[in-house]
Amino acid sequence: MSITTNGRVPRHIGFIPDGNRRWALARGLGKQEGYAFGVEPGFALIDICQKIGIEEISIYGFTQDNTRRPATQRESFSKACIDFALAVAQTDVALLVVGDDESRMFPAELKRYARRQGKGIKVNLLVNYGWEWDLNGLKTGELRSHDVSRLDLIVRWGGGRRLSGFLPVQSVYADIFVIDAYWPDFEPSHINEALKWFRQQDRTLGG
Amino acid sequence: MSITTNGRVPRHIGFIPDGNRRWALARGLGKQEGYAFGVEPGFALIDICQKIGIEEISIYGFTQDNTRRPATQRESFSKACIDFALAVAQTDVALLVVGDDESRMFPAELKRYARRQGKGIKVNLLVNYGWEWDLNGLKTGELRSHDVSRLDLIVRWGGGRRLSGFLPVQSVYADIFVIDAYWPDFEPSHINEALKWFRQQDRTLGG
Repeated sequence: MSITTNGRVPRHIGFIPDGNRRWALARGLGKQEGYAFGVEPGFALIDICQKIGIEEISIYGFTQDNTRRPATQRESFSKACIDFALAVAQTDVALLVVGDDESRMFPAELKRYARRQGKGIKVNLLVNYGWEWDLNGLKTGELRSHDVSRLDLIVRWGGGRRLSGFLPVQSVYADIFVIDAYWPDFEPSHINEALKWFRQQDRTLGG
Repeated sequence: MSITTNGRVPRHIGFIPDGNRRWALARGLGKQEGYAFGVEPGFALIDICQKIGIEEISIYGFTQDNTRRPATQRESFSKACIDFALAVAQTDVALLVVGDDESRMFPAELKRYARRQGKGIKVNLLVNYGWEWDLNGLKTGELRSHDVSRLDLIVRWGGGRRLSGFLPVQSVYADIFVIDAYWPDFEPSHINEALKWFRQQDRTLGG
């Protein structure tokens, strides 16, 4: 499949890969088994974004809200994020893991990526991220996600039409594209649809 | 027309009444002439929200970004907000005008509503509002919009699928419903559609 790139291309895209649990339930699996099927599509996603020249992407891994879920789920989504990040770190990307790394919910394996490592497309993975944790940085200086730039486009899988606490400051002007398919059913065509739609939006930034 | 109210009703709804300029252009009017046609629908909107028992509503008037537009537009949207607010203040509502009231862009007529006045459904009108102005409050204490509660649902007219800087903190978990019609073409059925859709969304708040 070819990815259309003519016309306005977003500089920074956010991805909310939702629907892993519903995908698993629909297949007769346990809810927590869905996350592992979300890792491979993440590699494909980065590959496509690199090819079309996106400069920066931010991916919603898990949040501090999410860690209140049952332990089996928590362990599964945590493992999926670790597997994903460690594999991605071996490729040509500049990886930053954004989240509260002072909490025991933050995987020790990812601590070194709390500062950006590597060169290439900027990949920001939100792990144990919380919008309040992020904004609380303002009280003493700057956003804790200060190394994440403003988003042009946000793509969400799983049909939900909300941000669910995803980078509230960087999202202020972002166009939001929602895909009904669950994240593990990711198809490259989803990105094509999102980019095609994005080109049709006017960008006034309120001016 | 009857407004369906069975089932889950949002406590606080945000409204982004976009499309005034496009509505005017489509009728052969000057861009700035659209805003005046957005006042009357606002009264209908409040009336409906009162009838179905919504506790609080927030309406996007104009932003600090918007004030960079040509003076004819700026004067028109400012007048529309003043006309709307002063009329609404005469009814059974608790009106709060939220925005930078230290700026000359903030209408003097609305200064007294920078603190909530009156009793009834809470109506928050954003006038000369800026998301940075709002967040900057955190540096010395709390959000400048601290008297505006978390949003359950946001309804936007004019087809845009973005928040455009609308209350970023209160919007973190809100479901976002987009109506393609331009705001001056407001119909009560739009609210019915939004509420019907809202009832179908699951509300996990990340848990």
